[in-house]
This record gives sequence, C-alpha cells and structure tokens, in this order.
Amino acid sequence: MPSGTLLYAQSGGVTAVINATASAVIQAARSRKVQVLAARNGILGVLNDDLIDTASLSAAQVKALAHTPGGAFGSCRVKLKSLEADRAKYERLLEVFKAHDVRWFLYNGGNDSADTALKVSQLAAEFGYPLTCVGVPKTIDNDLAVTDCCPGFGSAAKYTAVSVREAALDVAAMSETSTKVFVYEAMGRHAGWLAAAAGLAGQGRDDAPQIILFPERAYDEADFLAHVETVVQRVGWCVVVASEGIRDASGKFVADAGGGSDSFGHTQLGGVASHLAGRVKDVLGHKVHWALPDYLQRSARHIASKTDLEQALAVGRKAVEYALAGHNAVMPVIVRESDAPYRWRIEAAPLSRIANHEKTMPAGFIRKDGYGITAAARRYLSPLIQGEAYPPYGADGLPAYLP
Amino acid sequence: MPSGTLLYAQSGGVTAVINATASAVIQAARSRKVQVLAARNGILGVLNDDLIDTASLSAAQVKALAHTPGGAFGSCRVKLKSLEADRAKYERLLEVFKAHDVRWFLYNGGNDSADTALKVSQLAAEFGYPLTCVGVPKTIDNDLAVTDCCPGFGSAAKYTAVSVREAALDVAAMSETSTKVFVYEAMGRHAGWLAAAAGLAGQGRDDAPQIILFPERAYDEADFLAHVETVVQRVGWCVVVASEGIRDASGKFVADAGGGSDSFGHTQLGGVASHLAGRVKDVLGHKVHWALPDYLQRSARHIASKTDLEQALAVGRKAVEYALAGHNAVMPVIVRESDAPYRWRIEAAPLSRIANHEKTMPAGFIRKDGYGITAAARRYLSPLIQGEAYPPYGADGLPAYLP
Repeated sequence: MPSGTLLYAQSGGVTAVINATASAVIQAARSRKVQVLAARNGILGVLNDDLIDTASLSAAQVKALAHTPGGAFGSCRVKLKSLEADRAKYERLLEVFKAHDVRWFLYNGGNDSADTALKVSQLAAEFGYPLTCVGVPKTIDNDLAVTDCCPGFGSAAKYTAVSVREAALDVAAMSETSTKVFVYEAMGRHAGWLAAAAGLAGQGRDDAPQIILFPERAYDEADFLAHVETVVQRVGWCVVVASEGIRDASGKFVADAGGGSDSFGHTQLGGVASHLAGRVKDVLGHKVHWALPDYLQRSARHIASKTDLEQALAVGRKAVEYALAGHNAVMPVIVRESDAPYRWRIEAAPLSRIANHEKTMPAGFIRKDGYGITAAARRYLSPLIQGEAYPPYGADGLPAYLP
Repeated sequence: MPSGTLLYAQSGGVTAVINATASAVIQAARSRKVQVLAARNGILGVLNDDLIDTASLSAAQVKALAHTPGGAFGSCRVKLKSLEADRAKYERLLEVFKAHDVRWFLYNGGNDSADTALKVSQLAAEFGYPLTCVGVPKTIDNDLAVTDCCPGFGSAAKYTAVSVREAALDVAAMSETSTKVFVYEAMGRHAGWLAAAAGLAGQGRDDAPQIILFPERAYDEADFLAHVETVVQRVGWCVVVASEGIRDASGKFVADAGGGSDSFGHTQLGGVASHLAGRVKDVLGHKVHWALPDYLQRSARHIASKTDLEQALAVGRKAVEYALAGHNAVMPVIVRESDAPYRWRIEAAPLSRIANHEKTMPAGFIRKDGYGITAAARRYLSPLIQGEAYPPYGADGLPAYLP
C-alpha cells in the first residue's frame, strides 16, 4: 500500500462529466487504499488549505458523482503565472502539500491547469520534495493539444447537435407565416468545435444547420446575409449556428458589436446570436428567433454522450494509475485507433507538450465556402456523440444529482 | 364504417408532443377505416386547398411521428376574426371541406384554434353542412381554460426544471472566482407557468432557482436587485428565472427596456434575461451569465415528460372518438382526479367555454414575496413532469426523428 495522500482539484469551466472523472479518481484510489483529498474551488483550495477529505463520501455518493454535472468540489478561474512571477504561490502550494503528506497531485482542467501541474512538478523537484503531478484533461472547448478529444466536449457536442435538430423542426413548422431564421449561439471563443458539432444535426445542404459560422473564418456580414437569403428562398427557412468567438476581417469580435448601452443608458449585453438576428431582421426583413444556451450546453448531463462519459471515467482511472506508478508531469490522453468502428485507448503524454498549447480545428474540417463541415469533420466528430448515458431520475421527475 | 374524411390541422406554436397527438389521431382514424387529410401549415392549408393525404404515411412513419417534435404538417400563426369580419374565409373553409367530403374537423391548437373550430361549426350548421368540429388542446403556455393542463406544457416544464437544476450546479461550481448570478429566460408572455415549473428544480430557500419573476407580479427593479444581493451574500451565488412577459408597475414589458439600437445604430434585440443580467452587472457588480433557450424549450423531445406524452396521445385518440360519435364543438380536456397518486381522465368540454379564454396562474401558486412557488403549485406541477419518454436514437448518435 503506497504511503501518502492524493490531492485532486478541478479547474476552469466545468462540464457534464468532470465529476465522472472525479468519481473514477476516488474509486481507483480507494481500491488502492489511498486517501483522496479534494481541493475546494480548485487551486484556491490548496492556497487556502481548504481541502475536503473524500473519505466522508459514501460509496453511493461517489457513484452518484459520476452522473452529476457541474464541479462537485468547486472550480476556479485562477491562472498562476510563471515560476518567477508567482513563486510565492507555488511555494505555498508545496507547503500545503507537505502539511497533508500529498504525494500525488491530479489537476483536472485545460491548458492552464496542465501548465500549473507542470510547474508544480518542477518546483517540487527543485526542492527535492517527492511529488507526482498528473494533468487530467477536461474542456468542452476540445482545444487541448495531443489528446484526440477532451472529456466534456462529446456531451456538449451531443447537446448541441440534438438541440439544433429539434429547434430546426420547430422553425420548419413555423416558417410559412412566422419565424424564417433561427440563430443558435455555441460556446467556443477561439475554436469552432462545438459549432462544428452542430453540423452533425443534418446531412444534405438543405438540412439544418444550413449555415455555421466558425471563429477560424473571418465573418463577412454581406456574404453571410446573402447566404441566409439564398437558403430562405430555397428551403423556406434557415438555421444558423454561430460560434461566440467569430470575428470580422479586422479581428474585432462580432459579439462586441452590440456592446453598448440601451435607450436608458444601461449596459446592453449582446452576444453573437442577438447581433446576427438583429442584422437578419433589419437587412433581410425576416422574422427571426435566437437562442443562447450558455451554461445549459456544458451542464446537460441529461443528454450526455456515453462515449464521452466512458472517456471521462477512463482518464480518471488512468490518472490514478500513472500517479501511483510515479509517471510524473504527464496527462492521460485519448488516442484514436479507428473512426469506424470507433476505437480508442488512453496513453500518457508529457505535460510539456500540452501546457499552453491550443488546438484549433484543422482547415480540412471546414467546408470550402466556410459555412459548413466536411466529411472528415463528420468522421472525427460523429463517434464522440455516440450513445446515451441517462442519469437516474427521482420521484420528483428530475435527475437525481448529488446535491 | 363512417363515410367521409377527417381533416386534421396544427395551429400556433408547436411543441415536443403535438406530433404525438397527430400520430394518435391518424392511428385511431385508421383503426376505424377513416381517411385522414392533414392541412399543410394549419388553417392556411385549408384556405389554399393544400391537403396531405396521410395514407401516404407508413405505419412506421405514423409511429415515428409520436416521438418527433415540431409540427410535421406545418403550423401557422393565422387568426380568423369574427364570422362577420372574415366571412369569406370561413365560407372558403366550408367549400374546401365539401370538396374533400370532410365531415370531421380536428383543430390542434390553443385558444384561437378553439375559437376558429367553434365558428366553423356554427357556419356549417347555418349552411346545413354536416360537420363535426373538435378542438384538440396544445400549448406549452398551459393557458387553456377548463382543461387541468395542456399537452406540450409538461415536456417544456420538464426541460425547464432539468435545465435550471443543471445550470445551477455549474454556477455553484464557478461562483467562488467567476459567475455569481445566472439568469434563465422562460417563455410565457402572459402567464408564468413555465417559470413556475423551474421552481421544481429546488426545494429549500437556498436551492436554485432562488428567485422567479412572474408576469403575474409587477417587476420592481430595486426590490429584485436587493433580493439577488441577499441571496449572493447568503448562498454565494444566485439563479434567477424570469418569464419573458414580466412588466413593471406601469405595465411596460421589461423585455422592451433594452430595445433600441446598438452603437452602430443597428437593432439591438434584447429580452428579459439580457436586461436583468445587465442590471445585475451594472448595479451589483457581479459577474453574470444568462441563457435564452427560446425554441429549444418547446422542441426538446429528447427530455419529454412521459405524462405529457401520454396526455398528448390520449387527447388525439379521444378527439377522433368524439368526432366520429358526432360530439360537435367540443374539446377533449384533461380532468385531474388526484394529485398523489396522480390520476387523470379525458372528458369532452364545450369549445364555447374554452375559446378566447386565457388561464393565468392562481394567486395561491405564487409565494407571498412574489419570488417563488407555493406548495400548492408544486402539487399541481410535479405530476406533469413525471417520467421520461426517450426517443429512439440512430446510428448517428442523434434522435431518430421523422424528417
């Protein structure tokens, strides 16, 4: 039985399945008789010595964690800077680790977290403190380097494709006398992965979404509006999916275009969908509806992808395995073996190859006209939304999530 | 075997289960060997003599209709006026009915459709044309008179409660360093039924949603913001659910407050959630997120309520039964027999008691402070979101909806 404590922390935007990873970590550690502490609110909990002993969780609670969205121990948006600039904070982390005999540190997050885990491991080595740091992948943005995909993305992708397919049926039914254009805003500030996933909702050119706007392509209003009009004329209605991060040719975020004040001088919160909807209404004169699912898309555990859930569990289990085996400064990443049938495995990759990198969509995933996805994108995306993993429901008709 | 044709039409905003009603209508009529025509785009299809012979649908397609959201035959937002003002149109309807030997007219919609069905039945009587008109209830707004609830509402209510519970877990996890307030905008221009359903997401006063804004109560900005701040101080974060139709003391829609132009002079589409979020940000200084699910909430067949689905099927079957039995100018309504265990039956109610009435929430359903629901509201709402009725999924990982 290894001696010492394992510390687990969640970081950044949470997902529908990050708690599944937590559940797998706790279960794997328990089976090895290793104590797991969880930091409250990510790295903040370490800095504040605010740690939760997961031994207080019953086996049933640990199991329920796997079907509960959000971040059960709290997350945070705190990025540590370089070892030089934030040295005091890094030293504080080591101090707390020592106080709790932490020998294994699992940081569940994105690029920033991988960077932090890497730096902590470097400082521990410098101080001669025996610590194994493992980054655990998580992000709905799907923008981590090396790994084929990121736990959390598949479920958000499934939510997106399902929602767009459903809303499109609504628009089609209403279009003769009412709404002709529907705009859906997907998360994705720098990479259009979720907007691309919406493309799975349809196949042919007349299927919704007929237009997808990617942050990887400059937004050209005149061209966009012309495309919308063409689709409305041909199909009778048009569904647009826009990444929140689209920018015009000058690099200005379209979401900021509407920023400003309303008629009372109050802050007017805009966004991409509201702006595009306004332009469609003003210039084309069509009745338009728009949706901004915001947090709903990343917390929708009720429509999670089974594939995504399995990967979230697998990276948690493997992270414990790597940590206890002393694989330092690595991350369990997903390696795709084949598209169809979809096969994947987990491998350890060095954090140095992942930290602070950002993976955008390959150019070959975006259709030449810039408004849709290619067959290659479908081959990549489709396996990630396969399977349903419904949570149990309580007597109240609602998912029985851990409170 | 009765002689003649049955005409079915969908009207107004579509729902996750209106096609289930259509499916039940077609199946019930087929079992009685009655031909069913469906009007394309509701009453417009009758005016334009644009009717679909549902005999072209295979048994498998009729079955698939029951798990497909949207309006398969097209809907419309066209309200006929009084018999005097729109006499030519009503006469045109009868003319088309006669041309297709339509003896039974089933109009699937809300208050307006009940009114149209009633007037058509009156004109038919005046002309001595043998026609039986049946209104079939449908609306996510749950505002039809007489019936205990409306098919379509239960599924939208379940979507709302599930989504708010999920998003709340996200906000709770992020609140320490990021988002402290989340605002969710629910449909409901005149009645707060869907916002009330969000109340099912939590039980205690610290559970989300901590604040619900109903159109039945005047919106008081200062009082609202004070409540938000109190909740943030006590809980650490706050989830607000707002009906799109809330108005201030002077009767002005809050959604219109943000209406105006952005900094480029373009139309700025606002809405309640974006406005409230802006005020929280400006006045309280909290980081805020907001969601506008729009059509997603009424087309979310993937998370439909089983109870709602069963009622949607039942009103379809009963509508055919009433029609063929010659029950003219009636609607099959849902009568609640008991809350727990939940028991209900279908009865025929005269359209004259339903047409043009609008049912708002009983005052006893809104908590005294105006920001939550009462135990009576829970007893009423809870049975309506019971049970899951998942659609089948295809090899693409998406619901296998009828195209």
